[in-house]
Amino acid sequence: MRPKTGGDAASRDTPDTARGRRGFLKQGTALVTGAASPGIAQGANAQGLAGQPWERVYGAGFTGYGQPSRFEQPVMRYLGKPYGDLAPGTGSALAPIEALEGVITPSSLHNIRSHSGTPDIDPKQHRLLLHGLVARQLVFSMEALWRYPMTTRTHFVECSGNSNRALAPQPAQVAAGAMHGNIACSEWTGVPLRMLLEEAGLLPQAKWLLAEGADSAHMSRSVPVEKALDDAMIALYQNGERLRPEQGYPVRLLLPGWEGNMSVKWLRRLKATGDPTHTKDETSKYTDLLPDGRALQFTFEMGVKSVITKPSSTMTLPRTGFYEISGIAWSGAGRIRRVEVSADGGATWAEAALTGEERPKSLVRFRLPWEWKGQAAVLQSRATDENGRVQPPRKEWVAQFAPDVRYHNNSIVSWAVEADGSVKNVYV
Amino acid sequence: MRPKTGGDAASRDTPDTARGRRGFLKQGTALVTGAASPGIAQGANAQGLAGQPWERVYGAGFTGYGQPSRFEQPVMRYLGKPYGDLAPGTGSALAPIEALEGVITPSSLHNIRSHSGTPDIDPKQHRLLLHGLVARQLVFSMEALWRYPMTTRTHFVECSGNSNRALAPQPAQVAAGAMHGNIACSEWTGVPLRMLLEEAGLLPQAKWLLAEGADSAHMSRSVPVEKALDDAMIALYQNGERLRPEQGYPVRLLLPGWEGNMSVKWLRRLKATGDPTHTKDETSKYTDLLPDGRALQFTFEMGVKSVITKPSSTMTLPRTGFYEISGIAWSGAGRIRRVEVSADGGATWAEAALTGEERPKSLVRFRLPWEWKGQAAVLQSRATDENGRVQPPRKEWVAQFAPDVRYHNNSIVSWAVEADGSVKNVYV
Repeated sequence: MRPKTGGDAASRDTPDTARGRRGFLKQGTALVTGAASPGIAQGANAQGLAGQPWERVYGAGFTGYGQPSRFEQPVMRYLGKPYGDLAPGTGSALAPIEALEGVITPSSLHNIRSHSGTPDIDPKQHRLLLHGLVARQLVFSMEALWRYPMTTRTHFVECSGNSNRALAPQPAQVAAGAMHGNIACSEWTGVPLRMLLEEAGLLPQAKWLLAEGADSAHMSRSVPVEKALDDAMIALYQNGERLRPEQGYPVRLLLPGWEGNMSVKWLRRLKATGDPTHTKDETSKYTDLLPDGRALQFTFEMGVKSVITKPSSTMTLPRTGFYEISGIAWSGAGRIRRVEVSADGGATWAEAALTGEERPKSLVRFRLPWEWKGQAAVLQSRATDENGRVQPPRKEWVAQFAPDVRYHNNSIVSWAVEADGSVKNVYV
Repeated sequence: MRPKTGGDAASRDTPDTARGRRGFLKQGTALVTGAASPGIAQGANAQGLAGQPWERVYGAGFTGYGQPSRFEQPVMRYLGKPYGDLAPGTGSALAPIEALEGVITPSSLHNIRSHSGTPDIDPKQHRLLLHGLVARQLVFSMEALWRYPMTTRTHFVECSGNSNRALAPQPAQVAAGAMHGNIACSEWTGVPLRMLLEEAGLLPQAKWLLAEGADSAHMSRSVPVEKALDDAMIALYQNGERLRPEQGYPVRLLLPGWEGNMSVKWLRRLKATGDPTHTKDETSKYTDLLPDGRALQFTFEMGVKSVITKPSSTMTLPRTGFYEISGIAWSGAGRIRRVEVSADGGATWAEAALTGEERPKSLVRFRLPWEWKGQAAVLQSRATDENGRVQPPRKEWVAQFAPDVRYHNNSIVSWAVEADGSVKNVYV
């Protein structure tokens, strides 16, 4: 069964409103009438009051810095190390998006893309140099940066290589995060870059900034001055605490909505230049191969995109009944205006409820109730942003590029639900 | 020097706007002219390009679940264990709010108030019983709860005993978090409690719910049905991942804006009743002593409140110049409308810039630039919520209660900046 189409009043109910909850429950009596099935029991012999072992012993003492339950230990990032133990910090580590909820990604599970491992930086020794086409060359200690006026905003960071595993000839049967988890969303706090550039006195001929990291690869990218003066941030805090080492401790550049590696981690210098520097990291990588053999350089903004995280690839629906379809959506261009969900491979669509859509360049959580009656189904989500850009079908997106394109795949993701309840990754 | 008063156009500038940033910089040229002082260096011999040790070695490999830098290890919760090692999980652990930024509190540093330690709950065995004055008694497994439609909202949780250390006869010279850190703010995701109550069929005579935890103290509180049907949540996720054990894994009640211990952790049952149960946890504790010897019971909603976290008690301003005054504000009644800051002990006030004020019952971050010229100063913040309630002066608040009152202290916090730059906790 597909979600109700837009013309039906019930389909506009959302789980976030009282009306929507009642609507869901009215449809969803299977949850109650299914009381004999595992999960919900009814009646006087309820086992809810049975004393459990942990109710009979004094619990654990306080910790200074808490950790997840031992029962949640399987929730880990997916480590992609193309050079294996020869270079155990080169590659990507992807967020297990299928195990997460809401909008914020826990910092411990934030996606990582690194070129030469995670440097162990002493913030007392680290410096940020601002030089090149500026009136006053400046060097900032961390103590100085921590004293600046700050701003707090919630933004996603997506590696431009996210979802490249979904470009393999055959659909991989792995969890959603292992394919589409090179994305995360955090509340970032830091100094507006514009403030430091104004202090240094950016010269009129400065059109680009070279941003360089303090990792041993000195990962570096060219950033247009317009972006630096717009919403770029010298990020110092992530989800309330100082940046994690794997996200650039003690300081990273943050370019909201742009491909992740431009938000240079472990930032050690910004050099104002007249032209792009054409570093190794923007010529040998992060370009898009076209069918005619040319390569597109400098695709900065990440496209409008979404993925259903529940249910998703490798999961199994234990029985028929009502489920909440839930997932994440985002756009490098601004706010998400709408996410539609299909259960029939794109023939019909229903609009999902959103959380977080007021924030530009942030993840948004979408939700839609769905009844599975045991039929085969193909679940898809399609995001539209405030500029009216719509997430493209996979075939349409693939046709734009050469077969070995690796970056900027924002095409629609399809999960097939089979008659036995198993959920598979499929290309539609 | 005090912040500009409200009548001055410059005081309405905020660091979050381009105009505000320019305004700050215009005032803040000390940051540049102070280039010879520690922190910001100027000129050709900048040390920013000096190769640091970590730039010359391959960095650390990926981790499945990340942790903070070793240089951030001192950022820990403040553990308050009144019975010491006899009961190492009884008491409170307070968030180091003076070391945090933004609005979200990292789950690892979320405040804790527990009565018999942290139970080690197996989610496969845990059950939630919903019984009493309901048409259908229900028992939920965690698998069943995880399948329900969910909602995501950002809310603070404050222990009603927060800031009771600020009621000591003499002002303690400890960090802000050690006094006022029994509060945290998370993005919570879970099932609206209303949905489960509708499924169980709450009977008309049901006016209260007894909420009971699965800790060995069976901590329990009585909750009015109106709140349960309003914005109460059966919380399952915290900042994207499943609840931490110290915040109630695998399931807690969340009553936004109400005193923290009513958001019963490790929730094992909800019993619908006609009257409050008057449990040990709501008669022997969490009542407010009045001057005439009576005790006020059931002060559920937390008051409007704020505290400056930077600069704050035990810090030292290294030198004169511009600082950003930053802190957190919240109200159990809804949104924060305004936070004012004084640098002269309450004689004059200036309005601060806010982040997160669109969210009801959430922390809000406030910020205001301030120039310290070396004079003695008393910094205060004063929050006003959307209902027009204003955070009270300390003397006024104290006068309402008996001398040994311990709960619900939402009075104004004062930090004295002395001529040597040291910041002290004072009663004003």
